[in-house]
Amino acid sequence: MEIIEKRIIVDGETLNDEIININAFLSHRVDVRLLEEIGEAFRKRFDDIADQVNMILTVEASGIAIAAFTAKYFNYAPVLIAKKENPNTLREGYYFTEISSLADRTLTTIKIEKKFLGEHDRCLIIDDKLAKGEDVLGLAHIAREAGARVLGAGLVIEKEFQEGGKKVREKGIRVESLAIVTKIENGKVFFRRQES
Amino acid sequence: MEIIEKRIIVDGETLNDEIININAFLSHRVDVRLLEEIGEAFRKRFDDIADQVNMILTVEASGIAIAAFTAKYFNYAPVLIAKKENPNTLREGYYFTEISSLADRTLTTIKIEKKFLGEHDRCLIIDDKLAKGEDVLGLAHIAREAGARVLGAGLVIEKEFQEGGKKVREKGIRVESLAIVTKIENGKVFFRRQES
Repeated sequence: MEIIEKRIIVDGETLNDEIININAFLSHRVDVRLLEEIGEAFRKRFDDIADQVNMILTVEASGIAIAAFTAKYFNYAPVLIAKKENPNTLREGYYFTEISSLADRTLTTIKIEKKFLGEHDRCLIIDDKLAKGEDVLGLAHIAREAGARVLGAGLVIEKEFQEGGKKVREKGIRVESLAIVTKIENGKVFFRRQES
Repeated sequence: MEIIEKRIIVDGETLNDEIININAFLSHRVDVRLLEEIGEAFRKRFDDIADQVNMILTVEASGIAIAAFTAKYFNYAPVLIAKKENPNTLREGYYFTEISSLADRTLTTIKIEKKFLGEHDRCLIIDDKLAKGEDVLGLAHIAREAGARVLGAGLVIEKEFQEGGKKVREKGIRVESLAIVTKIENGKVFFRRQES
């Protein structure tokens, strides 16, 4: 999806050879028209399974707006937001798993209430970035535990060089990334060409 | 807005005489059709100033989806999401303020990058709940510091008995709440009738 590549080039900011700051249009200040375009693009990518999807799965906080607008293009499927662990919240009644964060090198627990996810659910995982793949793998782990099926994972930006996409695909999960970054070098971002 | 009252009665869960759990339709599992209705309802309430609003302000995480769909009904104004403090993130270049959380009785810092908010901005604050008013007052404080103007605050649920709405209105901020809870008693939720 060229539009994401363009936005990264125009409004993104490379902090080093691993991290692109997308605060200007997606993570902090959100371009809501872009959310519509992202939702439409995911629909196009997953059009063949769109009628089966009955839930959009994401994790707080940066996936929420993207997932909500994507849901609009999947017949208004409900969005289930995995919560990040709150130390004083009971885990009873929750599916949970630990994920490690690249950005701040900490362990976080993500959790989903058991009553909201079950064996009849056909989930599409939606998130902003795919780096090491921890979030997507964590959500897929929880879905499997609940007996739900993951039909695919849609990411706005995949950083191919961090190999999360490879790991997720090796688990048999179909991945569609709107922009695939092959490397970042001296502030320049390189993309893998995708068929449009 | 009767639809929110109905959803609270049908799908809400009172945890005690102060807290209503809205995980089933808004905070954890999100009904995206309801987000559209909420966006439309806020537009109706603030229709007189809709053309002036050029930014929707909210705070992560539970306000995000609501703010994004509300933005759709305000000419796709961008959504600016105040971030909750990450201990290892520099504060340089940020407006920030401390807010206390009712739910877990902790202090949190919320912050907004300076470059995204300025004196030309006319903000509508959007959030899910108004209890003690900390989030709305914190966002308004940051906006004022940035020289921006707050044209109003739209809340899905206001818990009148916790007096946040009173505090915010006393600061001269116009508040529109889609459902106003006057009290919670023995698991029953009471609402203030509003003119429709």
